[in-house]
Amino acid sequence: MTSLSPYDNLSAVARAAYRSKSAAEDLAPLPRAAKDDALLAIADALEVRTHEIVTANAEDVERARQAGAEEAMIDRLTLTPERVRAMARDVRDVAALPDPVGEVVRGSTLPNGIDLRQVRVPLGVVGIIYEARPNVTVDAAALCLKAGNAVLLRGSSSAIASNTALVRVVRDAVGGAGLPADAVQLVPGEDRDSARELMRARGLVDVLIPRGGATLIRTVVEQSTVPVIETGTGNCHVYVDADTDLDMAVSILVDSKASRPSVCNAAETLLVHQDVAADFLPRALDALADAGVTVHGDERVVPYGERSKATVVAATADDWETEYLSYDIAAAVVDSLDAAVAHIRLWSSGHTEAIVTTSQAAARRFTRLVDSTTVAVNASTRFTDGGQFGFGAEIGISTQKLHARGPMGLPELTSTKYIVTGDGHTR
Amino acid sequence: MTSLSPYDNLSAVARAAYRSKSAAEDLAPLPRAAKDDALLAIADALEVRTHEIVTANAEDVERARQAGAEEAMIDRLTLTPERVRAMARDVRDVAALPDPVGEVVRGSTLPNGIDLRQVRVPLGVVGIIYEARPNVTVDAAALCLKAGNAVLLRGSSSAIASNTALVRVVRDAVGGAGLPADAVQLVPGEDRDSARELMRARGLVDVLIPRGGATLIRTVVEQSTVPVIETGTGNCHVYVDADTDLDMAVSILVDSKASRPSVCNAAETLLVHQDVAADFLPRALDALADAGVTVHGDERVVPYGERSKATVVAATADDWETEYLSYDIAAAVVDSLDAAVAHIRLWSSGHTEAIVTTSQAAARRFTRLVDSTTVAVNASTRFTDGGQFGFGAEIGISTQKLHARGPMGLPELTSTKYIVTGDGHTR
Repeated sequence: MTSLSPYDNLSAVARAAYRSKSAAEDLAPLPRAAKDDALLAIADALEVRTHEIVTANAEDVERARQAGAEEAMIDRLTLTPERVRAMARDVRDVAALPDPVGEVVRGSTLPNGIDLRQVRVPLGVVGIIYEARPNVTVDAAALCLKAGNAVLLRGSSSAIASNTALVRVVRDAVGGAGLPADAVQLVPGEDRDSARELMRARGLVDVLIPRGGATLIRTVVEQSTVPVIETGTGNCHVYVDADTDLDMAVSILVDSKASRPSVCNAAETLLVHQDVAADFLPRALDALADAGVTVHGDERVVPYGERSKATVVAATADDWETEYLSYDIAAAVVDSLDAAVAHIRLWSSGHTEAIVTTSQAAARRFTRLVDSTTVAVNASTRFTDGGQFGFGAEIGISTQKLHARGPMGLPELTSTKYIVTGDGHTR
Repeated sequence: MTSLSPYDNLSAVARAAYRSKSAAEDLAPLPRAAKDDALLAIADALEVRTHEIVTANAEDVERARQAGAEEAMIDRLTLTPERVRAMARDVRDVAALPDPVGEVVRGSTLPNGIDLRQVRVPLGVVGIIYEARPNVTVDAAALCLKAGNAVLLRGSSSAIASNTALVRVVRDAVGGAGLPADAVQLVPGEDRDSARELMRARGLVDVLIPRGGATLIRTVVEQSTVPVIETGTGNCHVYVDADTDLDMAVSILVDSKASRPSVCNAAETLLVHQDVAADFLPRALDALADAGVTVHGDERVVPYGERSKATVVAATADDWETEYLSYDIAAAVVDSLDAAVAHIRLWSSGHTEAIVTTSQAAARRFTRLVDSTTVAVNASTRFTDGGQFGFGAEIGISTQKLHARGPMGLPELTSTKYIVTGDGHTR
C-alpha cells in the first residue's frame, strides 16, 4: 500500500510555508539564551564564510552590470568583506537586545481571584518581500529569530545568488546551534507566481512585511490575503510656523530634506506660514540651493526664487503628492497653521511631519491635529527611525494604523496571549 | 459656470465613508469630557425615545415571524423597553470608562536630548459588519465614539427598521451634544453590493470588524481589502491532565460546555489523559448527561458510554473541528500532555484552551506550548470575555495575531503615534 503524504500535492511555496509553521512552533517556547546562541553562531558564520558570500554576490553584481543597471542600484547590491562584517556586527547587536517574548504587557488579579496576564508571544511565520539589498536577508532573519518567529524570505531575482549564499550560511548556523534550520527559508522560485502564492498563504503565514519601493508595497497590499504591515512611503512635511526661530527653521529644513534624500523620512514638502514667508523664504531658498536642492514652488513661493540663487520651478498638483527621494522639494505658503494641517491631511502619506515653532500653543495644536506615525516639534523629520528611537533595530517603518505604527522594533514582531490562572474557577 | 463636487461621482457608500473620515478628523482631538457628554446624551435619548425604537423594532419582528424565523433568532432581534433601558445603562458604563486616547504607551528621553512619546490616538473610521442583534448598533457606536473613532455600521436587512431608528436617535444625541452626527452612520443600501463596497473602501475605512457567524466572518476576511480584525470562532478545548483534581475537572468541564453553549468561549472538545480516563470519564459523562450534553467520543471514549447514563456517539474527523454552539461535545483520550497539545494545534481555532491539573510542570508546559488567545489553568474557558477580564466593555474577541488578540476593549480600538520634541535637533 502506497501512502500519499498530505503535502505531496502542495506547491513548493506551500511546502516551505508548512515547514516554517512547524519551525515556528518549535521556536516559540525557546528561552532567550537558545535564540541568542543561534544569533551569535550566525554572526560567526558570516565572518568565517565571507569569501563564499562575496563570491556569490559577485555573480549578481556581474549580471546587474551586464543588464545595464544604474550605479546606485549596483552599490546597494554589492557586498564587500567590510559590509559582511557589518552584517555580523548587526546580528550581534540583535542578540544583545532584550527578548520581547514573555514580557507581561498587562497583569492583574480579577475580583474573583483569577490571575490574568497578557504575555508577549511570537507572531509565528513572518513573510518578508523585499528588493535588491541583500543585507535585508540577514537583518530580517536575525530580528525574526530573536522574536521567536520563523521567516520566509522572498528577495528579488537580481540578488538571488547573494541571498541563496546568505541563507545557506544562516541556516547552517541555526541548525548547528540546535534550532530548526527551517526557521529561515528562502521562498523557492524566482517568478511572480511564487510571490503571489506567498501573498495567498493565509493560515500558514501570519504576516507579510513588504520592504522596498512604492510599487512593490502597493502590489503586496492589494493582492495579499495574508495580513500585511504596510511600510515606508514617506511624503513628509516641514511646516514653518508664524512664530519661529529662523535659524532653527533653516537648519531643520535642510537636514530634513538634504541629509539623505533617498530615505523615507526625508522631507518632500515645505509649508511656510504667510506671516514669516518674506523673512524665511529668501534664507531658506539660498540654503536649499547650497545643498543642491531644486524647489517646486506654488505661486506665492516662485517670486522669491527670482531674488535668490535657488532654482525654483512652478509646482503642479502632482508635486504635492510626490515622494521625490531626490534633491527636490515642493514648497507652498499657507495662510495659517490650520491651512498647513489641511494641506498635510490632503497630501501626506502619514509618515512624518515636523513643525518649527516657538509657540507652545502652535506646537500643541499641530501635534494634536496631525495624524501621522510621527509628529516632530523643532526636530528634523529624519529622526523617525528605529535606531534613533533607541529600539536597537528596525524591521521597517509602518505607515498603517493597525498593529504597529512608525518604526517597528522587536515588540512589533510579536503578538500576545492571555494566561488565566484560577483554583477551579467557574462562571 | 456649474462646478462639479468631487463627491458627485461617488457611490452612496463612498460618500458616507468620506463623511465618516471627516467626522473622525473632528473627533480625534476631542477631550474626554466632550465625548462623555455625547455618550450620556445618547443614553438619555434612548430612554426618552424608547417607544419610537420599540415600534420600529416591532416591524422587524413581524417581518421575521412572517418569514418563519426561528424563535431563538426572533428573541435575539426583539427589543423590549427593558432591553432599551439596558442599552442606555451600557452606554453610561462606557462613558464611565477611562479614555484610551492620549495615554502614553512608551516614553523616554533619547541620548541626544529629544523627548520621545508614543501616544494612543483613535484608529479613525471603524466599519462594523454584523448580524441580527440590534443591540450591537448602540454598543459599537458607543465604544467607537469613546475611543474617538467614527463608525460605519452595516447591520443585517432583517434588523433594518430597528437599526435605522437606533442610529437616528444616536445621531440626534451626538449632534445635539455638539459633535458631528456623521460620527455614527448606517451604511446606505441593504444589498450585498453595499457590504462589498464597504469591504473595498481601503484608504477611507481604517479597519473592519465583522461580528456574527463563521460564514459572515469568512466572507469579510476573504473579500476585504480594508484591514480586518477577525473575531469569534471558538473551537475551545478542555484538557484534563494525568495529575488532576477530579471534582475540579468535572466542574470546569461542565461550566465550560454547558453554562452557555451558544457563545464562542464555550468548550467544544474534551481531551483526557489516558492515565486518568478510567477515573474521570465515568463521572464526567454522567455530569455531562445531567447537563443535557451529547458526547461525540473517539474509540477510547465510546466504551465508557455503555456504562454511563450519557449519550455517547462515535466521533468522526469532522467532530474535531466543529464549533457546535449546542449541547454537544467531542471527546478523546490522549496519551500525554504533548499529544493533547498536538491535537489542539491541529484542530483548535485558537480561541481558548483550558488545562485542569495539579502539576505545576504540566501547567507551565501547557501554557507555553499552546498558542491561543487565552490559555486557562484550572479555570473555565468561559472567562475569555472583556467583561470578565475587567475591560468594562468588549467590541469582540479577536482570534487573529495582528493588532489585537483575545477580548478587545477600548485600547484595542486605538492606534498610536510618536511625538518627537527637540530644540532644533538635526541628525
